[in-house]
Amino acid sequence: MEITFLGTGAGVPSTKRNVSSAALRLDSGEVWLFDCGEATQHQILISSITLSKMTKIFITHLHGDHIFGLPGILGSRSFQGGESEVIVYGPKGLADFIDTAIRISGTYLRYPLRIVEVEDGIQVNESHFSIKVALLEHGIDSFGYRIEERDKAGTLNVEKLKALGVQPGPIYQKLKSGSSIKLENGQTIHACDVTGPTIKGRHIVVCGDTRFTEKTIDFARNADVLIHEATFSEANTRLAYEYYHSTTVQAARIAKDARVEKLLLNHISSRYQESDVVGLVEEARNIFENTDLMEDQTSVQIPLRKASST
Amino acid sequence: MEITFLGTGAGVPSTKRNVSSAALRLDSGEVWLFDCGEATQHQILISSITLSKMTKIFITHLHGDHIFGLPGILGSRSFQGGESEVIVYGPKGLADFIDTAIRISGTYLRYPLRIVEVEDGIQVNESHFSIKVALLEHGIDSFGYRIEERDKAGTLNVEKLKALGVQPGPIYQKLKSGSSIKLENGQTIHACDVTGPTIKGRHIVVCGDTRFTEKTIDFARNADVLIHEATFSEANTRLAYEYYHSTTVQAARIAKDARVEKLLLNHISSRYQESDVVGLVEEARNIFENTDLMEDQTSVQIPLRKASST
Repeated sequence: MEITFLGTGAGVPSTKRNVSSAALRLDSGEVWLFDCGEATQHQILISSITLSKMTKIFITHLHGDHIFGLPGILGSRSFQGGESEVIVYGPKGLADFIDTAIRISGTYLRYPLRIVEVEDGIQVNESHFSIKVALLEHGIDSFGYRIEERDKAGTLNVEKLKALGVQPGPIYQKLKSGSSIKLENGQTIHACDVTGPTIKGRHIVVCGDTRFTEKTIDFARNADVLIHEATFSEANTRLAYEYYHSTTVQAARIAKDARVEKLLLNHISSRYQESDVVGLVEEARNIFENTDLMEDQTSVQIPLRKASST
Repeated sequence: MEITFLGTGAGVPSTKRNVSSAALRLDSGEVWLFDCGEATQHQILISSITLSKMTKIFITHLHGDHIFGLPGILGSRSFQGGESEVIVYGPKGLADFIDTAIRISGTYLRYPLRIVEVEDGIQVNESHFSIKVALLEHGIDSFGYRIEERDKAGTLNVEKLKALGVQPGPIYQKLKSGSSIKLENGQTIHACDVTGPTIKGRHIVVCGDTRFTEKTIDFARNADVLIHEATFSEANTRLAYEYYHSTTVQAARIAKDARVEKLLLNHISSRYQESDVVGLVEEARNIFENTDLMEDQTSVQIPLRKASST
């Protein structure tokens, strides 16, 4: 899995940072988009992402810098031949926005489009993932999404099975799914004796714009990656509170208390210049060492967790 | 006056050409925008145009590549401190699109926004301009806008007036407005005797997407500049007809028959590469010599016409 940041700025585009969007590329090749500010499709044009592979879009909240790229990206995906269904998740009001833009502009979509308006606490279960949703604190409804890749069974020890006289066949699948089997000689083989350690699924938490809230700590608990806004520096903690945003240090505190593996900061105010970035990262790292501040077109690999035995 | 092309592509953005928009900078410094595809505000960011100076937007038709940049640009203009009124002209449905996007996104505008839905044949009269609207042929309502700068009185010949014993004062204004005056000695001075030739206003015609139609010839008659789409080359005349678009050669024929001063081609299909441009221009110039094909960020000066006597 890899996440590519397409827009890491706040509020309005600048020449250095576009408005919000990030694309998660799954091992299957599918792309899941998080937020879609204006010109997200333009950012995709200069990235290695293929629009037709985009199958889900998660909208954290309805502010323009997070949604104004939606009508265009949906239309262009059709124009480029995308035919598979797209599901867009987001707050109440999202369907009205998308439907109106598509209808008024006469945009033709050659693929099915489904819009799912989410609520605090809901969970969506997919075959390989579950998706959890939490309401954060931003004046208007702003959500975090927790993407949990399901754990996978460890690798079968084929050598050991053959030594036991078990030949490949449906029995292998049974063992792989965790069941025990009984051989003709009466011997019972437990799955755990012939499979390697479970491959832990990765958990990625993407937060929308938000004030610091304790709730995020629970929501991000033990995640592999936490993507959290850091609109302001610590010096502007008061401004952050007034405008329902977070500081670098607040994001780092959440990462630390939630014991996440890695913290990626985005949604950086245009008041900060390139030369300020070192300082912004530094104040976060003082709290939580494994922090990086994202730039547009930065890609971050999300490695498999260290294996643990079943 | 100067027109800057912000997006010269058709349908979807490419890395070379953004979707439709052009900005007309008036002598007063005001900016009038024609169409506003997605990321028009991004194109403005790298141009010399100031968003707060943008006071009017003319939308030719409601296809996404001409309107999806509207919500973002209106919001950013407010964010950047724009306080003067903006009027957006366009087809029926435009207000629904803009109002929905502004409402759902909670976009705050610190300036008054007026949306005027236009119809074939209407005329808007401003102090220094009149604006004429014509319906073209594009499957959905697509309009052309003819911006007519009003003629200005010629310069007063102050030396001559002084020689006649007429001193500066309200009388100069009267002469400048075209009235005759009678001096105390009984002599009548006609405005035309003491003013230079009338300064002809410039006429700029901006067409939305359209098939070739004779109507455009009348509408563009004698304009200083005609901006016309050329989605296709002459070889694709049939495709142009089927998709309600025009070819280079059709645009040139209109320019020739309308006796315009200059033809600027835009809305170029992404099927054409940079190396095709010479050929596209060439086939238009074979019909109408004073043709140029626009690139993104190209600016074209619109000079005053040669003076003619009153």
